[in-house]
Amino acid sequence: MYNENCFQLGSNRSCIRELFEYGCRRAAEVGRENVYDYSLGNPSVPAPDGVNEAIRAILSDTDSVAVHGYTSAVGDLATRQAIADDLNARYDAGVKPENLFITCGAAPGLTAVFRALATENAELLAVAPFFPEYRPFAEGAGLKFKVVPADVPAFQIKLDALEAMMTPNTAAIILNSPNNPSGVVYTRETLEKLADLLSRKSAQYGHPIYLVADEPYRELTYGGVEVPFLPTIYPNSIVCYSYSKSLSLPGERIGYVYVPQNAADSKALYAAIAGSSRISGHVCAPSLLQKVIARCANLRPDLEAYDRNRRMLYNALTSYGYEMAKPDGAFYLFIKAPGGDSEAFSEKAKLKDLLVVPGTDFGCKEYFRICYCVKPEMIEKSLPVFKALIEE
Amino acid sequence: MYNENCFQLGSNRSCIRELFEYGCRRAAEVGRENVYDYSLGNPSVPAPDGVNEAIRAILSDTDSVAVHGYTSAVGDLATRQAIADDLNARYDAGVKPENLFITCGAAPGLTAVFRALATENAELLAVAPFFPEYRPFAEGAGLKFKVVPADVPAFQIKLDALEAMMTPNTAAIILNSPNNPSGVVYTRETLEKLADLLSRKSAQYGHPIYLVADEPYRELTYGGVEVPFLPTIYPNSIVCYSYSKSLSLPGERIGYVYVPQNAADSKALYAAIAGSSRISGHVCAPSLLQKVIARCANLRPDLEAYDRNRRMLYNALTSYGYEMAKPDGAFYLFIKAPGGDSEAFSEKAKLKDLLVVPGTDFGCKEYFRICYCVKPEMIEKSLPVFKALIEE
Repeated sequence: MYNENCFQLGSNRSCIRELFEYGCRRAAEVGRENVYDYSLGNPSVPAPDGVNEAIRAILSDTDSVAVHGYTSAVGDLATRQAIADDLNARYDAGVKPENLFITCGAAPGLTAVFRALATENAELLAVAPFFPEYRPFAEGAGLKFKVVPADVPAFQIKLDALEAMMTPNTAAIILNSPNNPSGVVYTRETLEKLADLLSRKSAQYGHPIYLVADEPYRELTYGGVEVPFLPTIYPNSIVCYSYSKSLSLPGERIGYVYVPQNAADSKALYAAIAGSSRISGHVCAPSLLQKVIARCANLRPDLEAYDRNRRMLYNALTSYGYEMAKPDGAFYLFIKAPGGDSEAFSEKAKLKDLLVVPGTDFGCKEYFRICYCVKPEMIEKSLPVFKALIEE
Repeated sequence: MYNENCFQLGSNRSCIRELFEYGCRRAAEVGRENVYDYSLGNPSVPAPDGVNEAIRAILSDTDSVAVHGYTSAVGDLATRQAIADDLNARYDAGVKPENLFITCGAAPGLTAVFRALATENAELLAVAPFFPEYRPFAEGAGLKFKVVPADVPAFQIKLDALEAMMTPNTAAIILNSPNNPSGVVYTRETLEKLADLLSRKSAQYGHPIYLVADEPYRELTYGGVEVPFLPTIYPNSIVCYSYSKSLSLPGERIGYVYVPQNAADSKALYAAIAGSSRISGHVCAPSLLQKVIARCANLRPDLEAYDRNRRMLYNALTSYGYEMAKPDGAFYLFIKAPGGDSEAFSEKAKLKDLLVVPGTDFGCKEYFRICYCVKPEMIEKSLPVFKALIEE
C-alpha cells in the first residue's frame, strides 16, 4: 500500500550520490587525502561576507516575529523588488515584482513550472547533456520527457534534431546554460536560431512553446563570456533561478521563477505556477533568507578559486590527450572517456580512488563529468592518475 | 497550454487569505486599530531567545560553507538525532534518526506522505473540521478525499460514521490534534478507540491503514491537557511536524516526517516519502535552520500570551451566549454562528470590521473560526461587536 514509483525513486539513489557516498567510505579506509572525489557539485567557496553580515543585521534591526514570520506565498515584496532591480540593471529586462515567484531553490521552481505546463499528452524536450533530475521532475509532473541528442563535441544545440522531435504536443524545451554537466554556455547565435525555430513552430502548432531556463549557474562564467538573458531573445522564456551557486547557499533553498510580462498567457501561467506550488506544499520560501536576498541580490561570487582549478585541470588534461568541451561556465568539465565508454572508465578510475561521474544519466555515455569545486591540492595529487588512465 | 487545475488552485485564493487581504485594505481606509482581524493563524509571540542566539552562534562557530551547504536530502544527522532525543525524552518512543525525514515544514511533509500512499483508487479520510488545504494536497497527490462529518459539539471523532465510510481502498486517515480550527485535543480514550477500529479494519482489508498525524500545534496546549503521541497508541502512525508554531518560525519552513520503525512497511514507506519529495523538488530543508533545530529541538514556546487571550475571549463570548468547543490547544476558537449560518454571520461581522472565518471550507458550515494570536487590546475593543452581533 505505497506508491511503487515513489518507492523506486526514493530507493534508487542517483549515480552521483552513490559515488559520493562510496568516496566517503573509501576516505574512512584510506584517508580523505588519498581519495580524489570529483563527484559532487557542492560549492567550495564560502558565501560572500555580505550574506552573513546581512543575517546578523536582520536579527538586530528587524522585529523577530517579522524575521521568521510567514510571507505571502509569492514572496516578500521587498525581495521581489530587489531581484527585479538587479535584473533590470543588468539586462534592461522590464522585470516587475509581480512577475517573480520566490521558491525554495530552482528544483521546486522547475517542478512547479512543469506541473503548470502539464496538459494532456504534453511533452518536454531536454537537450543532452542535461541534469538527470529533469527526468523524474518532468515525469512526476505528468509530462512526457524526450531527449534531443547532444551536439558533440561543441555541446551547443542540434536544431535540426530538435525540430524533428517536436510535435503539436511539445509544451516546452528545458535549457540549462551554463550547462551542467558540460560547462558550456550557449552562444547568442545558438539561442537566436533556437528562438526563430520555436517562434515558427509555435505559429505552426497554434500554441506557445515555452523555453524553461534553468539558471543556477548564470553568474558562474569565466573569461568574460556572455550568458544572454533568454527573455530578451524569446519572450516565452520562463526563468528558474537559484542562489545556491551564485551566493554559495545551496542548502538554504532560495531562488525564484520569473514569468515575463509579455510571455504568452503570462498571468494565467503565473497563477498556474502558484497553484502547482500550493499542491506540492509550498507555503513560502524561507523567510530569513528572503530578507537576506532583499539586501544581497546584487552580490556576486568570488570565482577566482574556481577559475584557477578550471585552468589547472583543463591545461593538464588536454596536454595528456583528453578531449572536452570548452568550459566557459559552471564548475564542471565534461570529458570524452578514453575508449568511449564512460561507465567502464569510471569503474577503472574508481580502482585508483579517482571518482568521476559517467555521462550516461546526463544523456551522453561517451563522456564523464568532473566537478572542480574542490581543493587545488586534490587536483595536483590526482593529475598523475588521470595521466596513467589515458596511457593505459 | 497550461494546467487548468493548477490555474484554478492558484487563482482562487483561500477564503482565509481573501479575508486577511480585505482586512489589510480596510485597515488602510479606517486605521489598523479599527479592524478586528481574527482571520490568520500567524504566531504573534516571538521565537524563544535561544533561536536567534543559536543563529548567531552558528555563524560564529561553524564554517560558512558547512552552515549554508547542502545536507543529505533526509536532513543533517545531528538534527535528526536532536529531534529523536527530544521525542524519546518525552514519550519514550524509540525514535531513531533514520526514522526521521527533515522537511520544509509540515505542508510538504503531508504532500510527500500523501503521494507516497497514492496507489490506484486509494482514499484519504479527513475528520471534520479539518484544515482546508488537506483537500488540494490530497487530490494533487492522486488520493480521493473523503470527509467524515463532525462530532458536534464536542469535536471528538464519530467513530461509527468513520467506520461506515471506510472501504478496502482506504489508505489513511488524517488527524490534526490540537485541531485547527476547533482548538480541541483528541482524548486518549478517543484515540484508543480509533486505534482499535483501524486495527480491526486493517485486518479485515488485509492491508495497513495508516494514521497521518499533522502536528504543528502539538506543543500549544493549555491547562496541562495531554496530547498523546500517536505512534505509542497505533504504530502505523506517520507524524508530520513543523516548528512553525512551537518555535514561532512559520516562515522558515522547517519540520519533519516521522515513520516509526515498527510501522508496517516502515522502510519502504520512508523510501517512498523520499522519492515523492524528490519529484516535488525537495533537495534538503533549509540548512541554517536545520542547524538551529539541532541546538533548539527541546525549546518550548512561551504560551502565556496565547493563554491570556484564550481565557479572555472564551469567558467573554460564553457569557454573551456563544457556544464553542472546549479550546484546549492551538490558538483557535471554533464558535457556533448565531443563526447557524457561518457565512452569513461572517458577512454581517465584516460590516462591523470584525473578521471571522466561516467554517464551510473546514467542513462545518454552522461554525466560524477565530484565531487568537492577536493583540489583547484588539480583543478588548472587539468584544462589544461580538456582543452586539449575538443580540441582533
